[in-house]
Amino acid sequence: MELKDDERLDDLLADENMKIIQSPSAFAFSLDAVLLADFANIPVKRGKIIDLCTGNGVIPLLLSRKSEVPITGVEIQERLYDMAVRNVSLNQLENQLHMIHADIKEMPGHYGNDKFDYVTVNPPYFTTENKNHQNRNDYLTIARHEIYCTLEDVVKVCSQLVKSGGKVAMVHRPSRLIDIITLFRKYKLEPKRIQFVYPKKDKEANILLIEAIRDGKADVKLLPPLYAFDENGDYTEVLEGILYGKKQ
Amino acid sequence: MELKDDERLDDLLADENMKIIQSPSAFAFSLDAVLLADFANIPVKRGKIIDLCTGNGVIPLLLSRKSEVPITGVEIQERLYDMAVRNVSLNQLENQLHMIHADIKEMPGHYGNDKFDYVTVNPPYFTTENKNHQNRNDYLTIARHEIYCTLEDVVKVCSQLVKSGGKVAMVHRPSRLIDIITLFRKYKLEPKRIQFVYPKKDKEANILLIEAIRDGKADVKLLPPLYAFDENGDYTEVLEGILYGKKQ
Repeated sequence: MELKDDERLDDLLADENMKIIQSPSAFAFSLDAVLLADFANIPVKRGKIIDLCTGNGVIPLLLSRKSEVPITGVEIQERLYDMAVRNVSLNQLENQLHMIHADIKEMPGHYGNDKFDYVTVNPPYFTTENKNHQNRNDYLTIARHEIYCTLEDVVKVCSQLVKSGGKVAMVHRPSRLIDIITLFRKYKLEPKRIQFVYPKKDKEANILLIEAIRDGKADVKLLPPLYAFDENGDYTEVLEGILYGKKQ
Repeated sequence: MELKDDERLDDLLADENMKIIQSPSAFAFSLDAVLLADFANIPVKRGKIIDLCTGNGVIPLLLSRKSEVPITGVEIQERLYDMAVRNVSLNQLENQLHMIHADIKEMPGHYGNDKFDYVTVNPPYFTTENKNHQNRNDYLTIARHEIYCTLEDVVKVCSQLVKSGGKVAMVHRPSRLIDIITLFRKYKLEPKRIQFVYPKKDKEANILLIEAIRDGKADVKLLPPLYAFDENGDYTEVLEGILYGKKQ
């Protein structure tokens, strides 16, 4: 397997054999991706899944551990798409995972009425009100800021790609909760499960996990909070289970 | 002080001298009211506060412990309004608390441009889709179900009564989060602080506390979760502090 530029080969999860190509300058996955993959109640045997803004393909790789269904990843940046394709080969998942180099906004037109059972997305978190950010076009800035797609674009595309009764799962910042809920409702995605992740006890939440059903009935559950670190600054037992590859 | 029918005299908070008239058949305050009064960041020295759906006046009574400003309570049920008036006298708070017997929907017309700095509300939680509930007109049913006012009525009235830059705090069920957020946005109440209360560890949240600013900027904080009970089924230390009258 060829590593390019500053790329390195990391363990996907600590106690498993899966590997992932990362790059400090282009894309390295975060805790958020791992939490989303764990949170998402994806179909196991039937249906199909699409992951938007897939980066180096970390979420499809993680989801492949708990499902047999085909998973498509979509990434707009060629450099990251190229990493994602190599990550599929590296883990010999060519029969299940398929990467597409495209703008997510083209996907609804591409797929038409051929809808998905489950959509996952770890979108750019930051708006681009700050001009310094808008002018920076490097890989990390594009992955993190709403340069090629706004939150509304993302939610709209999710809604267009998912079947009626199918599900969408997103990870984002809690500070955007109100925007996210308002947009989900606008595009007929009814939130059914929400979980907040707190860095530690007595701190404000810093990660939001949300799952919605297309055309679902209003009735949301607030799952027990997750804490990332304990009072000694170590990962909590729950987080260790997620990060170190607990069996599903 | 006269007690009517099945009324009884309870302590408002365990270690204080405040008393409250309650009635098992008409209105007895819940943990929710105590949590809302604790959560609300009310003005202390200047401004004025209104509490909608005030019942026996429990929230104004609790708020009087941490503020000097005038507090108005509005209650549609005469029987509960009568209890609220007696509760004000009982605690010698006639100079600060004022109870009104009215439909909250009449209040914006009544006050016109004379707006409030802070609005609190513990509204009826349940929709009236079930006809059995709609036909029952006893005190408790009216307090708990959206018979005289829907959630949208409540949010609209809050928005009409509060100043631009003033705040609204509500306690409700987490299952209605999406409706609440959508309606708050519709009526220009931007949520800024949200806290979920969990009955105990590893359970779903059962109480939602939300504070919004009229015409505020989008940016919400998710406060650390509150747990009501510990693993032995006792109140947690935090809840004890709130229920037993910690000093503000």
